[in-house]
Amino acid sequence: MKSNKQSQIEVLCIGTELLLGNIVNGNARWLAEELARLGIPHFRQTVVGDNRGRLTEVVLEASKRCRVLICTGGLGPTPDDLTTETLAAAFDAPLEERSEVLADIKAKLDVRGRPMAANNCKQALLPAGATVLSNPLGTAPGMIWSPLPNFSLLTFPGVPAEMQAMWEQTAVPWLQKQGLTSGIFRSKLLRFWGIAESSLAEQVAPFLEQQNPTVAPYAGRGEVKLRVTAWADDAAAADALIAPVEQQLRQIGGNYFFGADSDSLASVVIAALRQRGETLAVAESCTSGGVGAALGAVPGASDVFIGGVIAYANQIKEQLLGVPTQTLISDGAVSEAVAIAMAEGVRRCTGADWSIAVTGIAGPGGGSEAKPVGLVYFAVSGPEKSLVFKRQYGASRGREWIRGLSVGDALDQLRLALT
Amino acid sequence: MKSNKQSQIEVLCIGTELLLGNIVNGNARWLAEELARLGIPHFRQTVVGDNRGRLTEVVLEASKRCRVLICTGGLGPTPDDLTTETLAAAFDAPLEERSEVLADIKAKLDVRGRPMAANNCKQALLPAGATVLSNPLGTAPGMIWSPLPNFSLLTFPGVPAEMQAMWEQTAVPWLQKQGLTSGIFRSKLLRFWGIAESSLAEQVAPFLEQQNPTVAPYAGRGEVKLRVTAWADDAAAADALIAPVEQQLRQIGGNYFFGADSDSLASVVIAALRQRGETLAVAESCTSGGVGAALGAVPGASDVFIGGVIAYANQIKEQLLGVPTQTLISDGAVSEAVAIAMAEGVRRCTGADWSIAVTGIAGPGGGSEAKPVGLVYFAVSGPEKSLVFKRQYGASRGREWIRGLSVGDALDQLRLALT
Repeated sequence: MKSNKQSQIEVLCIGTELLLGNIVNGNARWLAEELARLGIPHFRQTVVGDNRGRLTEVVLEASKRCRVLICTGGLGPTPDDLTTETLAAAFDAPLEERSEVLADIKAKLDVRGRPMAANNCKQALLPAGATVLSNPLGTAPGMIWSPLPNFSLLTFPGVPAEMQAMWEQTAVPWLQKQGLTSGIFRSKLLRFWGIAESSLAEQVAPFLEQQNPTVAPYAGRGEVKLRVTAWADDAAAADALIAPVEQQLRQIGGNYFFGADSDSLASVVIAALRQRGETLAVAESCTSGGVGAALGAVPGASDVFIGGVIAYANQIKEQLLGVPTQTLISDGAVSEAVAIAMAEGVRRCTGADWSIAVTGIAGPGGGSEAKPVGLVYFAVSGPEKSLVFKRQYGASRGREWIRGLSVGDALDQLRLALT
Repeated sequence: MKSNKQSQIEVLCIGTELLLGNIVNGNARWLAEELARLGIPHFRQTVVGDNRGRLTEVVLEASKRCRVLICTGGLGPTPDDLTTETLAAAFDAPLEERSEVLADIKAKLDVRGRPMAANNCKQALLPAGATVLSNPLGTAPGMIWSPLPNFSLLTFPGVPAEMQAMWEQTAVPWLQKQGLTSGIFRSKLLRFWGIAESSLAEQVAPFLEQQNPTVAPYAGRGEVKLRVTAWADDAAAADALIAPVEQQLRQIGGNYFFGADSDSLASVVIAALRQRGETLAVAESCTSGGVGAALGAVPGASDVFIGGVIAYANQIKEQLLGVPTQTLISDGAVSEAVAIAMAEGVRRCTGADWSIAVTGIAGPGGGSEAKPVGLVYFAVSGPEKSLVFKRQYGASRGREWIRGLSVGDALDQLRLALT
């Protein structure tokens, strides 16, 4: 199935909200990463609004350039969702109601106790000859359709979770069957905490220049990642290229390295405690449940993480955690002494083997010269001792940044205490 | 300066890193927001890599469609930055060294104690006839260039801060002088909870068809939004167009409407309690701190939200919240009786006026036929009574989806109890 088209694949994101700047185009990025991973180069991305005329124009142009056009957006039930009907009209194909899709939509709405709206029926209409790309999460199905001999359209909803599930379950196998993937790309994500992206990049500089595997740094909120990507004929050969580089990068990263791929600080901490057969509780002031939520996000966390206290107000710190009133008065709620008292108090009242406590000033109000916004105290308490430490994040990046970094640093200090 | 071109402006982002998915296209979003704010509709965005042939093709196509093409990326000093030379070649224009640009680059490097590299000299080359768009922050200048009678190119570096500074200082005045800006757009976001996007869209169907203001629905995880956007000569006139439509949409939305613009369920609940002078605590099992984290995300929450208990394990439900052992045995942890006992228990131990409790099965494990994954019980307890309700979210969308919806539904039920 060779073609003289210059390009195999293009990406088209459909949605007026993208042209108004209401949302960032995360789908284009996600698809781009996936295509790179699969070894399918793509040379162009286009964004167009929910508009029949302009969408038609863009799709007809693309049909002359590429073999496969991946479309996202405009599959919902509302009148401004017009992707399917516009594509059908662009290639003069009639729409057909698919009874199996209609039944699936009805079943999904039933589970949620929602009535079938007239709008939803529209989602069961697909062009004659198209194959349903079923949506395991939502009501909007996509399709795989070849309206021209050497041109296929794949459509996905704009909702990222739905698009991603459909991509993995149905689109990837289809692309492989078409022979569009050549060799395979495998990648490993190495995760670091507590080091700046620029420092890590400097330390691994020679790796950033090499070709197979490539190494690319990414920075998030507190976390730094290195993605090692190798291309080879098969998975085993690609993994063999990755392994020695991974080993060296982990060694350079030292204690900053905490996990790979889908690991999180929370999952690593829970795995370490599970191995020891020990339990964990939290006592949170400025993060107000964020550490607990991160721990609870890990499937199966409940055999290790037993709960804790959100001690936002001082009265809770005193009543539930037994922080001495005198300490709150003399040292203030944001202090080393209170962090330790919170950590030890929550172990006492829950019976957990280990605990994490966080108390700080997330802002924008509540700061002073002595205790500015961004100052956070942490304590980790275990069977043998309690440790305390502080961070000064500064005020400039705001409340959510401070709270997010605090959750990560709290988990990271427990990780270091456990290893 | 009228034109029969279908479009005034398009956006072109140049960078192989975008096609590899290494970064999200934040520049496209920022420019889209700015164009909307200035009242300049744009109908297409394109992304292409740092490649001479493909960039030339895209630019020549765009020159036939639009009056102004805004380009970002590829202005740096390294060999893969080839935007300026490619654009010059595309329209057969010679490159000229601009001595004032060269002097500016040298001065900026001097300040940083860096030598002038041969690479940097390249940045002083611009096509004959182009106007320098000076860069107040970095070494890469942009340009405003009209290679054809009714077609202008504006180039910006890909570094967001540099692009944004140049846009505001030089590009916006130029666009205004060209008569491209006309009036302004204003928009208002109305937020709803507890209703499906398709149902709300059906109820407000006539509004989705109208032109000024336009009304467009968006769905997130549980939340549905309607964006009302008006265009007018000035802000006051635009707001006057929005006001009556907003009023009608809020009326149709009824109790499902909970706030506008930057409101969240948490901020609305906190504002309502602040007005009453009452306090709130949480008792969380399956959300494990998520409700507390959402409340604590609201700046100034601490005068209303005092804290609570993360009762992930049954022993915490008993020891800290006083849930009777017998109820846990007879009804199970995921039950109406336990939800109420948790809500009342946390009010008792914290002294809060109001409380929210959540207990459910987030999965993937832990479900049974009688109590499947996705079953969640909630209780809201206040000075006068306690209310309990349940949701069955189903298992298909996974643990994080169930936990996220549970946080929203918990806050929403308190909101309804308060209003």
